[in-house]
Amino acid sequence: MIHIFLILCSLFTFSTHAAVQDFCVADLKGPESPAGYSCIPAAKVIVDDFVSTSLRGAGNTSNIIKAAVSPAFAAQFPGVNGLGISIARLDLSPGGVIPMHTHPGGSELLLVTQGFIKAGFISSANTVYVKTLKKGDIMVFPQGLLHFQVNAGGVTAVGFASFSSASPGLQITDFALFANDLPSSLVEMTTFLDDATVKKLKSVLGGTG
Amino acid sequence: MIHIFLILCSLFTFSTHAAVQDFCVADLKGPESPAGYSCIPAAKVIVDDFVSTSLRGAGNTSNIIKAAVSPAFAAQFPGVNGLGISIARLDLSPGGVIPMHTHPGGSELLLVTQGFIKAGFISSANTVYVKTLKKGDIMVFPQGLLHFQVNAGGVTAVGFASFSSASPGLQITDFALFANDLPSSLVEMTTFLDDATVKKLKSVLGGTG
Amino acid sequence: MIHIFLILCSLFTFSTHAAVQDFCVADLKGPESPAGYSCIPAAKVIVDDFVSTSLRGAGNTSNIIKAAVSPAFAAQFPGVNGLGISIARLDLSPGGVIPMHTHPGGSELLLVTQGFIKAGFISSANTVYVKTLKKGDIMVFPQGLLHFQVNAGGVTAVGFASFSSASPGLQITDFALFANDLPSSLVEMTTFLDDATVKKLKSVLGGTG
Amino acid sequence: MIHIFLILCSLFTFSTHAAVQDFCVADLKGPESPAGYSCIPAAKVIVDDFVSTSLRGAGNTSNIIKAAVSPAFAAQFPGVNGLGISIARLDLSPGGVIPMHTHPGGSELLLVTQGFIKAGFISSANTVYVKTLKKGDIMVFPQGLLHFQVNAGGVTAVGFASFSSASPGLQITDFALFANDLPSSLVEMTTFLDDATVKKLKSVLGGTG
Amino acid sequence: MIHIFLILCSLFTFSTHAAVQDFCVADLKGPESPAGYSCIPAAKVIVDDFVSTSLRGAGNTSNIIKAAVSPAFAAQFPGVNGLGISIARLDLSPGGVIPMHTHPGGSELLLVTQGFIKAGFISSANTVYVKTLKKGDIMVFPQGLLHFQVNAGGVTAVGFASFSSASPGLQITDFALFANDLPSSLVEMTTFLDDATVKKLKSVLGGTG
Amino acid sequence: MIHIFLILCSLFTFSTHAAVQDFCVADLKGPESPAGYSCIPAAKVIVDDFVSTSLRGAGNTSNIIKAAVSPAFAAQFPGVNGLGISIARLDLSPGGVIPMHTHPGGSELLLVTQGFIKAGFISSANTVYVKTLKKGDIMVFPQGLLHFQVNAGGVTAVGFASFSSASPGLQITDFALFANDLPSSLVEMTTFLDDATVKKLKSVLGGTG
Repeated sequence: MIHIFLILCSLFTFSTHAAVQDFCVADLKGPESPAGYSCIPAAKVIVDDFVSTSLRGAGNTSNIIKAAVSPAFAAQFPGVNGLGISIARLDLSPGGVIPMHTHPGGSELLLVTQGFIKAGFISSANTVYVKTLKKGDIMVFPQGLLHFQVNAGGVTAVGFASFSSASPGLQITDFALFANDLPSSLVEMTTFLDDATVKKLKSVLGGTG
Repeated sequence: MIHIFLILCSLFTFSTHAAVQDFCVADLKGPESPAGYSCIPAAKVIVDDFVSTSLRGAGNTSNIIKAAVSPAFAAQFPGVNGLGISIARLDLSPGGVIPMHTHPGGSELLLVTQGFIKAGFISSANTVYVKTLKKGDIMVFPQGLLHFQVNAGGVTAVGFASFSSASPGLQITDFALFANDLPSSLVEMTTFLDDATVKKLKSVLGGTG
Repeated sequence: MIHIFLILCSLFTFSTHAAVQDFCVADLKGPESPAGYSCIPAAKVIVDDFVSTSLRGAGNTSNIIKAAVSPAFAAQFPGVNGLGISIARLDLSPGGVIPMHTHPGGSELLLVTQGFIKAGFISSANTVYVKTLKKGDIMVFPQGLLHFQVNAGGVTAVGFASFSSASPGLQITDFALFANDLPSSLVEMTTFLDDATVKKLKSVLGGTG
Repeated sequence: MIHIFLILCSLFTFSTHAAVQDFCVADLKGPESPAGYSCIPAAKVIVDDFVSTSLRGAGNTSNIIKAAVSPAFAAQFPGVNGLGISIARLDLSPGGVIPMHTHPGGSELLLVTQGFIKAGFISSANTVYVKTLKKGDIMVFPQGLLHFQVNAGGVTAVGFASFSSASPGLQITDFALFANDLPSSLVEMTTFLDDATVKKLKSVLGGTG
Repeated sequence: MIHIFLILCSLFTFSTHAAVQDFCVADLKGPESPAGYSCIPAAKVIVDDFVSTSLRGAGNTSNIIKAAVSPAFAAQFPGVNGLGISIARLDLSPGGVIPMHTHPGGSELLLVTQGFIKAGFISSANTVYVKTLKKGDIMVFPQGLLHFQVNAGGVTAVGFASFSSASPGLQITDFALFANDLPSSLVEMTTFLDDATVKKLKSVLGGTG
Repeated sequence: MIHIFLILCSLFTFSTHAAVQDFCVADLKGPESPAGYSCIPAAKVIVDDFVSTSLRGAGNTSNIIKAAVSPAFAAQFPGVNGLGISIARLDLSPGGVIPMHTHPGGSELLLVTQGFIKAGFISSANTVYVKTLKKGDIMVFPQGLLHFQVNAGGVTAVGFASFSSASPGLQITDFALFANDLPSSLVEMTTFLDDATVKKLKSVLGGTG
């Protein structure tokens, strides 16, 4: 009977070299490739690489947007590297807002786990799709399109947004326009906003130029 | 001023023909391709195609496994077709079990929203990764590998499993072996289970042969 | 000698059935799939399906943005369907502007063929990359990121933008925000713009609500 | 005990709608998409869709190249549609030759099952990789590169070539140049061959112009 | 005449830097990425990187399953790295069995080169597809689904299984369940097998716990 | 007001770690993977990585083919690495010819910016698609198929060829056959060219053997 053990093991051992196929836990300090982070050696991988407790608690919403986003992308949750999936927690106090934004690298599927969230996206054909979601509802936002989420009730809302990429990226429109050194003149030319509006928002959001 | 409106609109109208790029809401009755279901015409798409309320309530766990799986894959939630993402709700009463299974077409990211779930997967290299998860914890299961979830507390547990595919598939090992007409002799030869065990499970699970 | 002809022909004929592999000229009236338009039969394909003369002439820039975009995406140029590439012509009169926008489905490579164009994009990390390009210069804009092009000289500028997708899509930020029925209150909440600004731009761009 | 059967069945039935995920047996008469043929309904799929006996026997090598190629691509073997794999049988009588060719859509892995085959490919960097293979040997030819196989022994040789695509395509260089209506003048300009050579080969291979 | 040589060479030399495109022979000691192993420098690549003689001979079937699997995946055959294809040799003595297993990362195409093999797979929809194959027959097994092969004749059988991935992985169900330290209680809960059966198989296959 | 700046910044900072998602500027000295070159650190990326002026001027066509190809692939233009797009400039003096060739790794979209170019490709089904293009015309060449471009007027012609890959590769048929050490006997067997023709072209193009 010991035979079957030994023989089957030898039959099986070759696959220990193929671990790259099963998963590729991110080595955040190694070289990156267009496909993602490089992998830590399979022998060093432990269960905690595939588990995260970082989304247990609410993010801090004591701020002006009364909201928080807590991502578990490959950079924060190395186990998802190369697996085409990731997640983020959204906390929205009453009046909270996740501003208009896009994810350049993935589609989003939002699950509401508490409260009420009004969410929407705008298509390339410029059609608006908006809906108020309750606990247990889901909504999908196709890759790269502008979308937003706002608290639609008098209570704190919580949602979890899954993504079809381990590194979907995030570009908040207001930040891209007003929170960096993009010259005001270029912002004005390319958005039709007037100088006063651009300068006010640059001031509020910390932009220069 | 009306000029800018008209001109920009004409500038923009070409993209209304490119809606296939933004999304492809499944036409469940149309022809399928290796890339998924065919799309319903963009003009007929409404916000409810991107929203589902079907996961609001708990699944029925008054059964022997004391568990329920409620999927929102492309076949149930046409808005995700082609977007590389989907989700399912898991309900586990005390003692509930999601049996050993695989998803041939996608990786899974589990979020626990209530109770305690012990979850695990086994790699190609035959290493076991098991962890007990609390509310708010997440765990990722790489594509195609055997995994399971069991209730790890005295209370009902709820989880939401996201997938890196709109149609990840599901193959429950016990069903594949014992709940169809695969001849007992073949099951025995290929699993090393004895005849009595195979026949008992075939009887329980409704298999023949 | 006729033998080799006949035999090699029979050797070769099987591949006539595999034309789907070489190309898939779009049947704009057929069913779409997540991978693009369905294909017209190979036997009906002619060389003009792979050629377009529609970009020979300048677009009409006698408008307020003093610019025109002429796409040759799969919807306008069926030969590129499924081939992962497409192109558009940009004409910018003096003072012309291609407003801030994204392509949800592809990266862009701009070639300047006349005049001077100042172009830029903003990364997820909120870094601005801006450069003034001359005739013969190229610049690449990674997928999904906000970018713009403005005429940077006193003469008409022309560029050709290639895309890494047959249907890259186009979302002009101002249009998405102000040229549809997205309620002003939602625009204001999610962009921090004030009510007067939003209403003015909605008026200019033809939005309602 | 019947409970577990019924309940698990209900647990499981949703996946019967997800068959598109498992496989997509080609409907050769349905619309094609860039991803391949459309699928026949899962309910009509039988085991023989996944099996082919067409490669059991040797191809007819009583011809001038003393060779035969028998493909089992998606067009001949519908079960591989969408699965990213296919195969072809090669028969080479003594002196037999598979002429210089490429597969535009996939890499090839050749297995020799009888005799001796000298095979080679040329890289983009213009390096030649040639080897004589015996029974049981394998050689891989990267996608799109020119390669060839010739019988390297005094006996009939047989090989099986697997491909990383269900429809890898095949372009035999001599056929592309000399067996169609591509004008001789264009062939001469683009290959540096002289007129006599081009006209002789056009004559032999059935080309016109 | 020397001119054309020099000039064309200079025309051509740029592509020597693009070798990453043609192939990526695995550097088994370099960093891995989600796309596979890193590449050895093109200048060090030789024809033997693309050839393997390791499958010439039969594997050792003097064991209890009377079978052997000899893989030529990227880990054993570096030339296939990144090319989306690999192969394995199967030897089955009379009575030999390749136990129930999956390949998480690729579809399989089996070619029988000697003897008789009964092979089958089970779909997500729980349908069984079984067939007895003769020499020259082929059968395809879609990605991630449970399948098996058993010798169906009184003579040794040989097959070659190609895969749509350079690293398809392998998960033998019995090994995943019984040949590691997955606690017996979890195996029992998730498979419905009784304690005696689980412990017997764990004992036979070398599992603990 | 400073609050919103600080808070939104903290909201946003996580994405600075996700730069791998936006782009992957090639580190030409780092390890390569099947997905392309590894990335230089995002912090070191500057706008000039995304811009190239190398195609401003005409290539040197004072040679026998009276033509020049100037590529901006990932090896020459690191900003396109991983973005699925690249470009090359073609200069053809009167009588100039880009010889018959393939790109193993991508489709090509040609834009004529000066003069007249006759271009064509041959499909797997051996159909020829040829057209004479004027300034502003575009033509697409599906991946991996033989194609060519020749000057079709009495004046210098210029074109820009975009590709659906950052490293599409290039294989000029004449070079693959005659400009390396592939033995003449193998060339003759696999192309049906006679010995004198092969030896002459090998002599002209610098081949040996």
